Amino acid sequence: MKGEEIRSTSMEYNLQSWSKQKNINPIPVEKADGIYFWDYDGNRYSDMSSQLVNMNLGFGNQKIGNAIKDQVDQFCFIGPSYGAESRATLAKKIIDLMPDNMGKVFFTNAGAESNENAVKMARMFTGKNKIFSRYRSYHGSSFGAGNLTGEPRRYALEPGVPGFIKFFDPYVYREAITFDSEESATRYYLTKLEEQIQYEGSDSIAAIVMETITGSNGILIPPKGYMPGIRALCDKYGILMICDEVMTGWCRTGKMFAFEHFDIKPDIVTFAKGVTCGYVPLGGVVVSKEIASYFDENLLSCGLTYSGHPLSCAAGVACVDYYEEADILGNVNKVGQVLGETLEEMKKNHPCVGDVRYIGLFSAIELVKDKETKEPLVPYGKDPNGVMGKIAGLLKDRKFMTYTHENMVLIAPPLIITEEQLREELMKMEEVLTIVDQELL
Amino acid sequence: MKGEEIRSTSMEYNLQSWSKQKNINPIPVEKADGIYFWDYDGNRYSDMSSQLVNMNLGFGNQKIGNAIKDQVDQFCFIGPSYGAESRATLAKKIIDLMPDNMGKVFFTNAGAESNENAVKMARMFTGKNKIFSRYRSYHGSSFGAGNLTGEPRRYALEPGVPGFIKFFDPYVYREAITFDSEESATRYYLTKLEEQIQYEGSDSIAAIVMETITGSNGILIPPKGYMPGIRALCDKYGILMICDEVMTGWCRTGKMFAFEHFDIKPDIVTFAKGVTCGYVPLGGVVVSKEIASYFDENLLSCGLTYSGHPLSCAAGVACVDYYEEADILGNVNKVGQVLGETLEEMKKNHPCVGDVRYIGLFSAIELVKDKETKEPLVPYGKDPNGVMGKIAGLLKDRKFMTYTHENMVLIAPPLIITEEQLREELMKMEEVLTIVDQELL
Ligand SMILES: Cc1ncc(COP(=O)(O)O)c(C=O)c1O
Ligand SMILES: Cc1ncc(COP(=O)(O)O)c(C=O)c1O
Repeated sequence: MKGEEIRSTSMEYNLQSWSKQKNINPIPVEKADGIYFWDYDGNRYSDMSSQLVNMNLGFGNQKIGNAIKDQVDQFCFIGPSYGAESRATLAKKIIDLMPDNMGKVFFTNAGAESNENAVKMARMFTGKNKIFSRYRSYHGSSFGAGNLTGEPRRYALEPGVPGFIKFFDPYVYREAITFDSEESATRYYLTKLEEQIQYEGSDSIAAIVMETITGSNGILIPPKGYMPGIRALCDKYGILMICDEVMTGWCRTGKMFAFEHFDIKPDIVTFAKGVTCGYVPLGGVVVSKEIASYFDENLLSCGLTYSGHPLSCAAGVACVDYYEEADILGNVNKVGQVLGETLEEMKKNHPCVGDVRYIGLFSAIELVKDKETKEPLVPYGKDPNGVMGKIAGLLKDRKFMTYTHENMVLIAPPLIITEEQLREELMKMEEVLTIVDQELL
Repeated sequence: MKGEEIRSTSMEYNLQSWSKQKNINPIPVEKADGIYFWDYDGNRYSDMSSQLVNMNLGFGNQKIGNAIKDQVDQFCFIGPSYGAESRATLAKKIIDLMPDNMGKVFFTNAGAESNENAVKMARMFTGKNKIFSRYRSYHGSSFGAGNLTGEPRRYALEPGVPGFIKFFDPYVYREAITFDSEESATRYYLTKLEEQIQYEGSDSIAAIVMETITGSNGILIPPKGYMPGIRALCDKYGILMICDEVMTGWCRTGKMFAFEHFDIKPDIVTFAKGVTCGYVPLGGVVVSKEIASYFDENLLSCGLTYSGHPLSCAAGVACVDYYEEADILGNVNKVGQVLGETLEEMKKNHPCVGDVRYIGLFSAIELVKDKETKEPLVPYGKDPNGVMGKIAGLLKDRKFMTYTHENMVLIAPPLIITEEQLREELMKMEEVLTIVDQELL
C-alpha cells in the first residue's frame, strides 16, 4: 500500500482511540529513525511526545530490534507456566533496579492491565476493598484502570466499580488557596487526605494508587514532603502505596523510576511503555517481598494468556540494558536542564504561558488567557472554538508532533534527543506561543 | 542462562498466573517447532492445547517470523492516530472475512481488553447499562472482562461491576432435567433466558456476551437452534449480540469463526489468540457497520497506547494469510474427524469418560466417577486429593501437555497437526484413561 491507500483504508476499517471517527485523518508513516519519522510524501516530523510517552529510546533502536529478531528464531511464545530465558532475565533485572524491599514481577501486556492487576493483588493481600486514586490522573481505560482514572476518560465506565474513591492531587498552581511554601501545601494536601481516609473508614482501604508524577493530566510534580507524607499515612493505616510508573518510569524524569526523587519505597510499582519503548507490548506489576511471599501460600488470582510474553520480554531485556549502557540518565539530566531553562524563559516572555512544569524530559506548558487571573485558555472539559486543536495544528505545520490535554501542551521527547535537536524544536514552540499571544488570547 | 538457572530465576522473580507460587515449577523451554517443544535436557513435549489455545499454527511458523522481522526493519511502533500499513491491511482483511454487516475493527492487546472494549462500546451505542453473560464462561481477568466471566476466576473481582448479570449456558449433559431432543433443550434455555431478560428489564440490557462455543469451561456446544434463538431475542429487545471468539476464532472449530456454524450475524465479535497465534500480543473488537457509523458522530471513549500495534498487526497479516494459503480449515476438518471418532471410542470404552465434546480441533473429555449417575470425578470447585493434577501428571509423564479444568481435560492441538501425529498422541491419552479407570475412580 502507498500513503493515500493506507490513510483511506485506515479511515474505512480502523476505529481510532478517543475520537469521533469522522474527524480522523491519520498521517501514513513510511519510515522512522531516532526522534524523526517520515510520511509517504517524504515529510519529516519530530516526535516531541515520544508517541504516547513510550518511545523513550526513539525509533529504530538496533539493539532492541536485534533482540526481537533473535527471539523470533528461538520461539515467539511459550505459555506463562513455562520457563523462558527472556522472561526470567527481565524479571531479575527489574528487581535489581528496584529498592531492596521489592520481590517479584507479574508481567502483563500494557499499562491498564498492570494497574488492573495491582488493584487485584492489593485487595487479595490486604483483604480490604477500597482503593484511593486521584482526580487528575489517567491509569488506563479498562474497567479497573478506568475506575482508577479520575479525569473524564473514566465517564464511559460509570456507574463505577464499588469502592473506588477519588481524592485531589497536589496541583499547587491551581489550588483555591495560596500557600506560603511547598511545605504548607504538603501539610494541606496530606491533612485533607487523612481526613478523607478517616471518613471512608481507615480500616477498609487496600491501597492508594498514584502516578508518581501525574503525566497526561499536566506533569504535576508533588511538593516537597508530599510523597514521604503519603508513605507515612499508608504505614499508619496499613494501606499499600502503589506507584503507577507507566509514564514516569524508565529514565523519563531523570531517575530510573520517578519515586526515587522522593526517597520512598512503594509497596507496588506498575510499569509499561518505556520497559520496551513499545517495540513489543509489555507491562508489569512489581510487588514487595512481603506481598510476593503472601502469594506463596495464597492463590494469585490473576492471569492472562500473554503474561511474560517471551518476545516482549526479549525486547524488554535489550531496552533495559540499553538505558544503562548508553547512560540515558546522563543525557536526560543534561538535556533536561536545557528544556527546563527554555520553558522558564517562555513563561517569562509569553503572556499565554501561565505555568511550566518539568522534570527530566517530561514537561508541560499550561496556557492561560490571563497570567494574573490564571484563567485557562480553554474552560475545563470544553474547547468550543477548537483553540487547542488550532495550537496542535500550528505545531504540526512546523512538524513538531505532540499532544495537548485540556489547556496544556505536553513536551516529552525521546530520551536520546540531543541538546541541539531540542533547541531546534523548541524554537518552533517559541514561534507558536508568539502566535497564541497575538491571535488566540 | 541454562535450564536450571531459568527455572530457579523464574521461581525467584516471576509471579505466575493462577497459582500458589510455592507450587510452581516451570519447565524451561529451549526450542520449539511445529507441535513440539524441548526442554534444556533434550526432552520433547507435544503441545496438545496449543499453549493456551492460541498457537493455532504451532511454533516456528516462518511466514509469521519473517513478517515480524520485516516490520522491525520498517518500525516497531507508531501511535494509534497514525496510519500504518500493517494496521490498515489487517483491519481490512478481518472485515473481508466477516459477514457483510460488519464494519470496523478496534485493536487491543489481547482477549480481556477486547471484551472490556466491546462492553464499553455496547453501552455507548445502546445507551443501556446491563450486560448479560453466562456462568460457565471465561472472558478474561481484568475488572470488565472478569465480571463477564462466570466461573470462580471472577471471585477476586467482587463486589462486581453494577449491571453485570449472569445466566446459565446450555449444558445439556449436566442439566437438572433430561430433554427428548436438542430442540426441546433449546426451547427450555431460550424460554428461561427470555424470562430473565423480562425480569431484569428488557429495556435496560445493552448486550448479551457469549463465547460462541464455551472454551475453557468445557467445550459446550450450543444445541440446534440455540444461537439463532439468541439472535432473535436480541433483535426482539434491541440487545446487541457479542460473540467472544477469542478461543474459537481463526479456524479452531473448523470454520474461520465459530458463529459461522450457526448461520447468525453477531453485532460485535471479539478476538485475540489465533489472530497472531500469540507470536506478538494482539486482540480486537469487530463492530457492525451500524455501530461503526454511530462512532462517526459520537466520541469513541476507548483507547490504549498499543491499539493497532504495527508489529502485532504485521504478525496478524502474515498469520491470517497463512490460514488461507495453507488451507488450515481443510486440515482441521480432516484431522478433526479423527479426533471426534477417537473420542467417541474412548467414551464407549472407558468407565471414567462421562462425555466427550468436540468440534474441529477443539475438544474436552469430561471425567466421571460413575457413568450412570454422572457424578463428576472431582466435585465442582474442589479437588481435595489432587486427582486432576495426577491425571495431568500422567499425561505429562508421556510428554502430552495440556490443561485440565474442573473434571475435564482439554484437547486442542495446533491446527497443523497431522492425522498421524494426532493418533500417536491420543494413544497416550488412551493409556492414561485406562489408568484412571483402574486406579482413580
Ligand atoms: C500513567 C499511566 N498509566 C496507565 C496508562 C495506560 O497504559 P496503556 O495505554 O498501555 O493501557 C497510561 C497511558 O497513557 C498512563 O499514562
Ligand atoms: C474465550 C476467552 N475470552 C477471553 C480470554 C482472555 O484473553 P487474554 O488472556 O488474552 O486476556 C480468554 C483466555 O483464555 C478466553 O478463552
